[in-house]
Amino acid sequence: MTRRTGLGIDTGGTFTKIVIVSEAGAALAETRVPTRPAAGPKAFVERVRRAVRSVERRSGLVPGAVCLAIAGDVDVSSGKLRRSANLTTFEGFPMRSALSGALDRWVHMHNDANMAAWGCYVLELKRRASNMLAVTLGTGVGGGIVLGGKLYVGSTGSAGEVGHMRVLRGGEACTCGARGCLEAYAGTYGLLRLARKVLDERPADLARLRSWIATDGAKAIAEAAAAGEKPAREIFRRMGEWLGVGLSGLVYVLNPDAIVLAGGLSQAAPWFMPSVRRILAAETYRGPFGHVRVLVSRRPDIGVLGAGLYSLEGASAD
Amino acid sequence: MTRRTGLGIDTGGTFTKIVIVSEAGAALAETRVPTRPAAGPKAFVERVRRAVRSVERRSGLVPGAVCLAIAGDVDVSSGKLRRSANLTTFEGFPMRSALSGALDRWVHMHNDANMAAWGCYVLELKRRASNMLAVTLGTGVGGGIVLGGKLYVGSTGSAGEVGHMRVLRGGEACTCGARGCLEAYAGTYGLLRLARKVLDERPADLARLRSWIATDGAKAIAEAAAAGEKPAREIFRRMGEWLGVGLSGLVYVLNPDAIVLAGGLSQAAPWFMPSVRRILAAETYRGPFGHVRVLVSRRPDIGVLGAGLYSLEGASAD
Repeated sequence: MTRRTGLGIDTGGTFTKIVIVSEAGAALAETRVPTRPAAGPKAFVERVRRAVRSVERRSGLVPGAVCLAIAGDVDVSSGKLRRSANLTTFEGFPMRSALSGALDRWVHMHNDANMAAWGCYVLELKRRASNMLAVTLGTGVGGGIVLGGKLYVGSTGSAGEVGHMRVLRGGEACTCGARGCLEAYAGTYGLLRLARKVLDERPADLARLRSWIATDGAKAIAEAAAAGEKPAREIFRRMGEWLGVGLSGLVYVLNPDAIVLAGGLSQAAPWFMPSVRRILAAETYRGPFGHVRVLVSRRPDIGVLGAGLYSLEGASAD
Repeated sequence: MTRRTGLGIDTGGTFTKIVIVSEAGAALAETRVPTRPAAGPKAFVERVRRAVRSVERRSGLVPGAVCLAIAGDVDVSSGKLRRSANLTTFEGFPMRSALSGALDRWVHMHNDANMAAWGCYVLELKRRASNMLAVTLGTGVGGGIVLGGKLYVGSTGSAGEVGHMRVLRGGEACTCGARGCLEAYAGTYGLLRLARKVLDERPADLARLRSWIATDGAKAIAEAAAAGEKPAREIFRRMGEWLGVGLSGLVYVLNPDAIVLAGGLSQAAPWFMPSVRRILAAETYRGPFGHVRVLVSRRPDIGVLGAGLYSLEGASAD
């Protein structure tokens, strides 16, 4: 077993995915455990330790390094979670050193959207871009940045939080407490709000729309759009416009080679991408806008794969 | 004369400044010539060549390299101006190679806001920041980015065009053809529009305000604010809020150590900075917002000084 492998751990509010990846980004072995933030960070580390041992025994692969992707604002220098909507009990805990001790190897720790960006950079772009960003469309909107072929995390590890750029000062309320953030108009959360608006405007479609925006709303709206339902198409059209406005700001600032959209809602790309592209095509600065490619990643596990791949980058990558 | 010196050239729509700088950023000799874009790029190159020879003869200093900072979208790979509002006749001309031939040395060529950013990085921050951006408040709003101590120009040389990030989708018209750009609310152009709004709201102040927003409006409004005139303070307060909204988006994306405000309108910082700071202080992500410093550069020649300093960075910097 001389094959080089990486170990990715992707921790969200509900589940923690664990994957052993090849250098090409193939998932060689995987498992998942509940995150259970209420049980505290020490119990979490122990649960992850056991799961890693188990997947290593099962596969016969023991990766040399680990990367933890976690949903929240990561202090990369201290290896602690600074702030997280779903993992408040983990905030301030020395997670990286605890995991490193438990797994007895080097651990990288990054925001999950940053690791999704790394996954997109390696797997979707095959590293054939110098400057790129990924925008993750989940419940909210996140992002990660790769510049000059290296992960860019900013001065405190928080770069790429693109969901909180304002696209409409004083607009819809965002979960962060501010108004008019991109996240208030894109991502599942924003999509459902747009759906409610369309519902208010079209009383005739009320019953159908109500059923969409009940549980599992975004998926149902995507299915309705796929079935040709006009109000569902309209909802995605609007979301795409808002997303396009956000992406245009990012192109002005970063002038990247590529933007990759990832996250669960990127599956609905056929319904929102036309308006994203229309907004970007209307920008007058042809240098950056003529150059940038916008792609969609369809890999649901891009975050944990990206983490596994990032663990292969070596200790100097952070 | 073994002292190392750099030669900076800063070309705007009306004037071209030429400065020989020391490694510490002191202006050792300077001159300026009219840009005269209507006479075409070849006449411009010849005019600059003569002015450089003259300032070199006069000072006895012959810098080994040159950096041209120019107002427009620069194609860094080809050394051409791709697009410029005020220098349309220079668009597509091989400016860098023409200047390099005329001056018989290596020429760097960058957007002027990028060079202002480099000047701010070296002179205002003393290189004691890893990641920074400068936002230039002139007629419009520009910007430049330094990451990891190196100029970041993006994939086509256009990064840092922060003035065209949308802060209010569908808002005021911008010179770029879009609506709701930061530039439509900050910079001299945006300030004068805000002044007209305040005027509409306060008929009693009409005569006084009208006189401000006549010729040289921004300077007059700043003087009125300095004299304690409430409507003038109100105009800057509003501009500061819009600028704060734009800067907050940049902090979310880039998570920098510092932002330096430069350009002519930065002189009015006492009147708009309180609202900039108030907006940034209200952001809930304390990691990046607690970390970033916002400074104001008071050097009117930061762009040409930055260009001169950048010429000292060597050919590998581009």
